[in-house]
Amino acid sequence: MNIFYAPPSQINNGYAELLDQEAIHASKVMRAREGDKLTIVDGEGGHYRGIIRRITKKSVQVEIEDAQHHSRPKPHLVLGMGIIKKRDRLEFAVEKAIELGAAQICLFRSEHTIKENVRMDRLESLAISAMKQSLQAHLSTIEVYHSLDVMLESVFADNILVAHEKVDEAKGDINYKSVRNSERTLLLVGPEGGFSESEIRDLTDKGGELVSLGPNRLRAETAAIAFMSQFL
Amino acid sequence: MNIFYAPPSQINNGYAELLDQEAIHASKVMRAREGDKLTIVDGEGGHYRGIIRRITKKSVQVEIEDAQHHSRPKPHLVLGMGIIKKRDRLEFAVEKAIELGAAQICLFRSEHTIKENVRMDRLESLAISAMKQSLQAHLSTIEVYHSLDVMLESVFADNILVAHEKVDEAKGDINYKSVRNSERTLLLVGPEGGFSESEIRDLTDKGGELVSLGPNRLRAETAAIAFMSQFL
Repeated sequence: MNIFYAPPSQINNGYAELLDQEAIHASKVMRAREGDKLTIVDGEGGHYRGIIRRITKKSVQVEIEDAQHHSRPKPHLVLGMGIIKKRDRLEFAVEKAIELGAAQICLFRSEHTIKENVRMDRLESLAISAMKQSLQAHLSTIEVYHSLDVMLESVFADNILVAHEKVDEAKGDINYKSVRNSERTLLLVGPEGGFSESEIRDLTDKGGELVSLGPNRLRAETAAIAFMSQFL
Repeated sequence: MNIFYAPPSQINNGYAELLDQEAIHASKVMRAREGDKLTIVDGEGGHYRGIIRRITKKSVQVEIEDAQHHSRPKPHLVLGMGIIKKRDRLEFAVEKAIELGAAQICLFRSEHTIKENVRMDRLESLAISAMKQSLQAHLSTIEVYHSLDVMLESVFADNILVAHEKVDEAKGDINYKSVRNSERTLLLVGPEGGFSESEIRDLTDKGGELVSLGPNRLRAETAAIAFMSQFL
């Protein structure tokens, strides 16, 4: 099943308009024709089925036949992740976290961060394709923060879980009840090398709970994906 | 912490010998010198600490000072995965499954398989680096099968779980008890497009239990990683 994306601003008066990459994908790659049916999501829960009425060089006009609204699935998970040095691994982690249902992804610089710049254009188009691929109707937001502190001040979460290698075994299990009962849970994963000791102290002072992701040492992107997978 | 790999055939009379890539990695990349200490795993549970006695162009000789044996952690998980078309996605899934503790990875051709050839040399060196990276002492085996049937006949497993999109909601949860009580659990994930209906019938006839990995449609490699993550 092929799904296309048009933000709410492109949906008006019973018509949706595909532009740019989405229009090219429909008309050139998928070879859609006037009269064909297709499905569109608006990234904010809107899910439309419609029929193509007009294809031009730059846009595809779709008459909406059926409109539905999906609410954001619970639990509402925010993934906070240290910026990973290797671009392919960072992008892989972001793509997988979105497929697995992360509503928001916050990348941050921390003490052990090696690389600082992030190709946001690539991450944003990756967020759209992961949303469509996994049949979701909500577009995940991606944000970059200069520091862990700034991120913690900016992101609302009433529950914070921190993946950490060195966890007292008796305390290391994920408290699923705290996640179900929260409005918004923030899952935190460090960059390569993990969080520093002072960052861990800061995080626990702010109410973060340390959790273990098993006995093996996981790469940063593996930890992010495995952490998200705990809430399937 | 840097760990090196030497198979049991290279460990004799209180000495371990690093060869090929491992020797180059130690002497050239890590700039190890005679007298330096290092850690070696043999891929079969052996875990050695030793001191470098001799570095030549092609080998590094290590005198073993401490030897331990680790048994394979339980549960014993085998990941059976349809061959994925894109090489980077296939390799990513294999690497992550090993980090997460898969003892054996069986790649197979199935009805929806598009691509058939696999670069085994790359997967084998990836298995070694993932073992070292995740601080494990056991090397995962990787096998390729011409068909799902041949794989099922060749691989011993007393418990089979099959990731499937269309699962009756009442039955879709993973039975963790069946995994803990089994000698060896086989986790099966299809290629892109999943298993065909007749494959699913075959698998359930052979005792396979269908399990759901949540409401989102997951890419094949995401399903494999998320499936493995359920057993952390």
